[in-house]
Amino acid sequence: MRILSFESSAVSASVCLTDDEKIIAQSYQNCGLTHSRTLLPMAESLLAGCDHSIDDIDAFAIAAGPGSFTGLRIGVATVKGLAFATNKPCIGISTLESMAQTIYGDNLNICCVMDARAGQVYQAFFKRDGQTLIRLCEDRAIKLDELAGEIGETSQILVGDGANLCYTKLIPICPNLKLAPEYLRYPSAYGVAKLALIGLNNGKGVCADELDAFYLRPPYIAQPKKTKIIV
Amino acid sequence: MRILSFESSAVSASVCLTDDEKIIAQSYQNCGLTHSRTLLPMAESLLAGCDHSIDDIDAFAIAAGPGSFTGLRIGVATVKGLAFATNKPCIGISTLESMAQTIYGDNLNICCVMDARAGQVYQAFFKRDGQTLIRLCEDRAIKLDELAGEIGETSQILVGDGANLCYTKLIPICPNLKLAPEYLRYPSAYGVAKLALIGLNNGKGVCADELDAFYLRPPYIAQPKKTKIIV
Repeated sequence: MRILSFESSAVSASVCLTDDEKIIAQSYQNCGLTHSRTLLPMAESLLAGCDHSIDDIDAFAIAAGPGSFTGLRIGVATVKGLAFATNKPCIGISTLESMAQTIYGDNLNICCVMDARAGQVYQAFFKRDGQTLIRLCEDRAIKLDELAGEIGETSQILVGDGANLCYTKLIPICPNLKLAPEYLRYPSAYGVAKLALIGLNNGKGVCADELDAFYLRPPYIAQPKKTKIIV
Repeated sequence: MRILSFESSAVSASVCLTDDEKIIAQSYQNCGLTHSRTLLPMAESLLAGCDHSIDDIDAFAIAAGPGSFTGLRIGVATVKGLAFATNKPCIGISTLESMAQTIYGDNLNICCVMDARAGQVYQAFFKRDGQTLIRLCEDRAIKLDELAGEIGETSQILVGDGANLCYTKLIPICPNLKLAPEYLRYPSAYGVAKLALIGLNNGKGVCADELDAFYLRPPYIAQPKKTKIIV
């Protein structure tokens, strides 16, 4: 099954074309440009570069949340558009779970974190042991000091765009934190593709109008400053 | 330092743009098309996608061998052309050492292997322990049965386009072989970029005409079959 997967939940963006387990092509960028400008051109040149067209794709996948509100909306809207236009199924994947896919090893505690602002992170714990990845809690928004209490002295590998923030703030009280290697620290469309294949094979694909972002909490909007009204 | 790195030593191809340690963009494909057709267009769309031009690049890097003769020639010729046209330095990196860059963990034996045909592989052993990567032997061409004798019952993580071949042939006699995860098994331009940064910072950059592929052995050319000459 050929799946075109997208990841745009934070500052980086990526697109991955897989055929079952095989990666045919992948593009990644982390240059600060808005996803509305970069995501579809990345997909277009990725497909053209390996002589594929959108008609060769059997299904579309997206990291549907949690994450940046704007990033998620751009990604979900892109995949909705592609699935609607081609009448193919699509699937939304947990951003946090997709990140855990690329961390491998034996008996590892994985802490996936995204910066949710306002002193919070979107977070979930996973356990990796060889081929087995077990989710230990639901995706949630949690305050950094509460997370510190849960981590305590356990050893954890931090993954995600909130990993650096988390490491810097928590290392004085959580001494056994480690950062995932830089090239695996940020979300990737390959992690999305891996979970999408499992989901689609289990009949979890949906049509375009059923796909939704999952935000976990309402957007954080700062109160505008009071201004003097000059008459 | 902004480095544009290329990897085209086997069937897959990749291009990576880094700024010191940070990955700005990366493209990878493994679709069987010839590198002479895909490599420069990949670089072009990667640069355009993140608003960079070739003039923004400080140096160019290539996995210069060992590997497929044609793949290496295309990659080295591409980087020579770019370095010559822009009058910027370039650097050739060991393909086998670049592969070991993406395998992380504690106390791991890494066996980097590329299919060299004729019953041989290009191979080198490395030891990874946290941030430290130690080379245990020089890059070489070695027969599979000799390699099996050296590996014996040691545990080894196989990386490279020869990993599957090596695993299939040697697992009956080397029971502690493991394949690297599929998404890290093939060479990547990021591994090249990582070594290129170290090399360039240590003054090992060269100008275009000094860059060479390193083949390790002369090409394997089958003798043409004897044909009857019909007069």
